[in-house]
Amino acid sequence: MKLATLRTPAGTRAVLLAGAELLDLGAADVGALLADPNWRERAACAAGDRFPVAGADFAPVVPRPSKVVCVGLNYRNHIQEMGRELPSHPTLFAKFADCLTGPTDDIPHPAETAELDWEVELALVIGRPVRRATAAEAEAAIAGFTVLNDITCRDWQFRTREWLQGKMWDASTPIGPYLVTPDELPGGVRPVLDVRLDVDGEVMQSDTTGDLLFDPVALVQYVSTVIRLAPGDVIATGTPGGVGHARTPHRYLNPGATVVAEIDGIGRLVNRVVADAR
Amino acid sequence: MKLATLRTPAGTRAVLLAGAELLDLGAADVGALLADPNWRERAACAAGDRFPVAGADFAPVVPRPSKVVCVGLNYRNHIQEMGRELPSHPTLFAKFADCLTGPTDDIPHPAETAELDWEVELALVIGRPVRRATAAEAEAAIAGFTVLNDITCRDWQFRTREWLQGKMWDASTPIGPYLVTPDELPGGVRPVLDVRLDVDGEVMQSDTTGDLLFDPVALVQYVSTVIRLAPGDVIATGTPGGVGHARTPHRYLNPGATVVAEIDGIGRLVNRVVADAR
Repeated sequence: MKLATLRTPAGTRAVLLAGAELLDLGAADVGALLADPNWRERAACAAGDRFPVAGADFAPVVPRPSKVVCVGLNYRNHIQEMGRELPSHPTLFAKFADCLTGPTDDIPHPAETAELDWEVELALVIGRPVRRATAAEAEAAIAGFTVLNDITCRDWQFRTREWLQGKMWDASTPIGPYLVTPDELPGGVRPVLDVRLDVDGEVMQSDTTGDLLFDPVALVQYVSTVIRLAPGDVIATGTPGGVGHARTPHRYLNPGATVVAEIDGIGRLVNRVVADAR
Repeated sequence: MKLATLRTPAGTRAVLLAGAELLDLGAADVGALLADPNWRERAACAAGDRFPVAGADFAPVVPRPSKVVCVGLNYRNHIQEMGRELPSHPTLFAKFADCLTGPTDDIPHPAETAELDWEVELALVIGRPVRRATAAEAEAAIAGFTVLNDITCRDWQFRTREWLQGKMWDASTPIGPYLVTPDELPGGVRPVLDVRLDVDGEVMQSDTTGDLLFDPVALVQYVSTVIRLAPGDVIATGTPGGVGHARTPHRYLNPGATVVAEIDGIGRLVNRVVADAR
């Protein structure tokens, strides 16, 4: 099944994609839906209001996750383009809920950066609480997958040895539109899917999620060793090669650009970059 | 004024310290109180239930901040003991609300670490929404100060180049007991206070918050450039010299130890370290 969070005049609603319609699931958003242990049954029995997919205005698929944990270097070819060795442990950094934005919202280009860059990522969403998960528990804890674009201010990322300040800009990170359950994907909880990003029609990133060094199940196990993962929490699994900062010459996003981040079978983010005045 | 979040049989309550009593402020916690733009007036006119301070069970002063932003290297002497140059920008990393624990709660010693360390910090709490703050706006956005102990798994912190995985352990970070408003502190929004930490009665850290390289106002300006700060958000301003990892030989926390982190005029955290079975 494919779930989303729809903006309506009466507030956001968790919805299920059914053909050309979106069915109201009786929850304010996908995060609230996943907090119900019976969310799968609720979604299977959807009988609420119907909205057309055409013209739908989607919110971040989980608007207020308690945690967004991102993996820094996880595609073998991206690690190599950044000039690094294959790591023995995943590199983790954080985002806050306020960093997220909708799948077709404009991306602000802060006046304070000259190096706004892209990073398409497969993101997993947690569907049940889990701590120190076994592999089986980690598999069962994955509600599904979505697309995330980890828009990054490279100049701020590399000001200090910690990346956070380049990664946590307000409303910088589109996520959505759909959470797709593993049963719909080749590879299931370890999906093998084509992942792409283009800027104004030029392909910048193109890879397969099969190139991940630490797969989604391994990441849930690793992160849940450190902290309890809650329904709606997001783990972004890292980006493949082709980011602007690693190109010669460097390529960055400027106001007016349109960025399309897509994973086959999951969905597509289409965002325009707009000036964000100081 | 001194505000706290009290655990009661009916749930948590925001309270005001008045002599030997705590006065109910009509909000579930200090975070909920600060979300009311009239929180100062509400606290000034407190007339709710009264609880004795003696035997009070305090929750994290803000139990569910939307953001906890920590500063990595900010006391001149701690930067020097870690062998680093004075930086031109603050180093930032994140914690999530689930990392926080109460000011007298036990600190879990995860079975997965052999290097659990301490870091006493002055933390500021945001009292009004602010983005791209001027100095005056940053001053006005600081609701007050509290004490935070940034308990860290050093072996996990240094597994990769990002510190987060050593810093975001579940319930690892005591914070509280009081939020003290700047008018009660020497130096106001740039308080100059003795800060100390001892382990089983042995002084490990002792400094003054006057040694901060980036002061609280500068930090609110810097962080709010990147992301909107909301009422209840926390910025931990960094730790002075004397952490266990920088000692020769290294010193770490083991189950049974008691850690006392204190800032004069603000408050004291007293936490016992207990084994957290895998």
